[in-house]
Amino acid sequence: MRPLDISIIGATGAVGTVLIKLLGASHIPVNRLRLLASSNSIGRQSTFRDEICFVESLGETDDIKTDIAFFSAGGAVSAKWGPLFAAQGALVIDNSNAFRMDPDVPLVLPQVNPSALAVRPRSGIVANPNCSTIQLVRALRPLVTAFDVHQIILTTYQAASGGGLIGIDELLSGTRTALDGGAGPSAERFPVPLAFNVIPQVGETAPEGVTLEERKLIQESRKILGMPHLQLTSTCVRVPVVNGHSEAIYIEFEEPVRLEQVHELLVKEPGVRLFADGIHEGYPTPRFLEDPADVHVGRVRVNPENPRGLWIWVVADNLQVGAALNALLIAQLAIANNVIGGT
Amino acid sequence: MRPLDISIIGATGAVGTVLIKLLGASHIPVNRLRLLASSNSIGRQSTFRDEICFVESLGETDDIKTDIAFFSAGGAVSAKWGPLFAAQGALVIDNSNAFRMDPDVPLVLPQVNPSALAVRPRSGIVANPNCSTIQLVRALRPLVTAFDVHQIILTTYQAASGGGLIGIDELLSGTRTALDGGAGPSAERFPVPLAFNVIPQVGETAPEGVTLEERKLIQESRKILGMPHLQLTSTCVRVPVVNGHSEAIYIEFEEPVRLEQVHELLVKEPGVRLFADGIHEGYPTPRFLEDPADVHVGRVRVNPENPRGLWIWVVADNLQVGAALNALLIAQLAIANNVIGGT
Ligand SMILES: NC(=O)c1ccc[n+]([C@@H]2O[C@H](COP(=O)([O-])OP(=O)(O)OC[C@H]3O[C@@H](n4cnc5c(N)ncnc54)[C@H](OP(=O)(O)O)[C@@H]3O)[C@@H](O)[C@H]2O)c1
Ligand SMILES: NC(=O)c1ccc[n+]([C@@H]2O[C@H](COP(=O)([O-])OP(=O)(O)OC[C@H]3O[C@@H](n4cnc5c(N)ncnc54)[C@H](OP(=O)(O)O)[C@@H]3O)[C@@H](O)[C@H]2O)c1
Repeated sequence: MRPLDISIIGATGAVGTVLIKLLGASHIPVNRLRLLASSNSIGRQSTFRDEICFVESLGETDDIKTDIAFFSAGGAVSAKWGPLFAAQGALVIDNSNAFRMDPDVPLVLPQVNPSALAVRPRSGIVANPNCSTIQLVRALRPLVTAFDVHQIILTTYQAASGGGLIGIDELLSGTRTALDGGAGPSAERFPVPLAFNVIPQVGETAPEGVTLEERKLIQESRKILGMPHLQLTSTCVRVPVVNGHSEAIYIEFEEPVRLEQVHELLVKEPGVRLFADGIHEGYPTPRFLEDPADVHVGRVRVNPENPRGLWIWVVADNLQVGAALNALLIAQLAIANNVIGGT
Repeated sequence: MRPLDISIIGATGAVGTVLIKLLGASHIPVNRLRLLASSNSIGRQSTFRDEICFVESLGETDDIKTDIAFFSAGGAVSAKWGPLFAAQGALVIDNSNAFRMDPDVPLVLPQVNPSALAVRPRSGIVANPNCSTIQLVRALRPLVTAFDVHQIILTTYQAASGGGLIGIDELLSGTRTALDGGAGPSAERFPVPLAFNVIPQVGETAPEGVTLEERKLIQESRKILGMPHLQLTSTCVRVPVVNGHSEAIYIEFEEPVRLEQVHELLVKEPGVRLFADGIHEGYPTPRFLEDPADVHVGRVRVNPENPRGLWIWVVADNLQVGAALNALLIAQLAIANNVIGGT
């Protein structure tokens, strides 16, 4: 295949910088890589496959023709620029929330619903799911395929990096100040200071009291799994972890499940790393994740008083599994399917 | 009533030091206060009602006669010394796990089951519930009284102080080292380093995979509420918060509930501070708790897709509401009931 022209919009951000690294290490042949960000970043540089690339300002570009455009610059940038790039022939792979629920936009987890990308989407845009949805659905897939689900109840423990580089900075500087006895900088990225705190709000709260993140989990899981009636409810919480989201998930099936069966299903699932006696001892924690490319599942146990109830504890790198890596896998799937980069 | 002789065992610990302060501010008349700890603490001093008290070594005491003995020195100390103090006439108020499930020992939340302390317990010992149980049951009480419960599914976000002073030290020093780029001290109090991490294990794990904390929540809630068949399942998680436990609780009732009804019940509940539109805006977080004597409840919402399901977010000071304050309220209840200190 011919080498591709690729643009990364949001190249200086938390997701964008990880994506540059992962793309560099991948086998995707690249003709020209363009790094785009806001005008604040003009002239900043980054290394891609041993070459130095300079960051350009998206707003000052007139040439937006490219084969693939990865967007990680927030919903507003995607909403405005995504369709323009697509109109110029790019396959837009969007990390934001702008298009995920658009019926013309496939929402793709390559390990779960690759067929959603069998043909080029009409809009030219493919959406990457929300980070907490990705690790949830990756762990659920083998279980909801094998058993009928009654309902899923989950809570999250989401890292500061989910709020981008500013989120990480705010956690670290707030922690330093708190250790020195100060009150910490006032919160900007998060609703209240996150250092030594937990915040039961991720995203805006709608009038019925459900947050945006909690709504995304329901809607996106249903769309990806093709289960429009999946019963799922959650409380999403930000925790003072730098990177790596965790989820405590309780799945109530229609019938009793056996622990051995569940273990077998999870052990076989590609990209899932199961922690269980005799397999991998212990359990995953976000600070000491074994592999940023895997979904880590531990504390798998059947409720001793209700054999239809199963707990799992799922941890993944939200910047990789939850964003950049999934975007890259979407690109590879699109290439394999000749959705882009065909001769 | 005559002033009482009171002993605090574990007087140098996280719970003990808070108890000294709360007892000092209370109206309980004290004749003689004795502060006891391990031999490491001999000669340390503390201020009680403007007088200096010296800490003595429990192991080197021969005079253990007292009216009330507050134990907060771990299960082993309570198991050995509690019955000895009780045999000498003390009412033992125990913060440890040693006697909670003993049928001869009442497990008392004064706001929930005061009648359990109507008469002097046969053993002379009263148990204080586990910190995460206390805030759970305090918030549940009005709801499980008004409605039939189908099941409760909860996860916790538990602070370092639940692991005592060593737990707090380990979090703070580990955080400092991590900020300086080091790996942090190896974990002692917690199974893995807690700084910038979350750990899905509180207490030992039993072979079926349930932790001690998760088992306590079930057994103690049933005993306090007098609901032996209450269905409750949980995942307990330690988070890098200094003090203040949080819980995300999903209650599935047998019948639909209305949000206004739930608000009414919670607003009326003594010692519960409800955060809801028009009452108290926002939601509680552990670092910015409004009143360490209250149980803070926020994010109260009915599942839009299942009117039998209710989420609540409950935050309380685990050292006060979850330990020292409850122990003090037990003492006041015992005094009021003439269970001790009668003339
Ligand atoms: N972090 C995660 O775990 C995660 C996971 C999944 C999806 N996402 C999504 O990915 C997107 C980026 O997240 P992030 O965490 O990487 O955020 P971030 O660290 O804040 O980075 C934002 C990026 O967008 C660029 N940008 C902002 N405004 C722009 C504009 N008007 N024009 C062009 N570029 C602009 C920034 O450039 P400057 O440096 O020049 O300001 C920066 O490169 C968001 O939509 C987010 O929801 C994030
Ligand atoms: N922290 C909480 O949120 C919480 C809540 C509810 C219940 N509790 C329970 O309360 C108890 C104490 O907890 P904590 O958090 O206060 O722990 P902590 O900070 O570690 O304090 C332990 C206390 O026990 C004393 N001690 C230890 N070994 C002793 C011995 N052999 N003889 C006499 N005293 C001894 C220590 O004295 P030295 O200083 O001399 O070592 C210290 O005063 C535990 O049983 C815990 O489960 C704690």
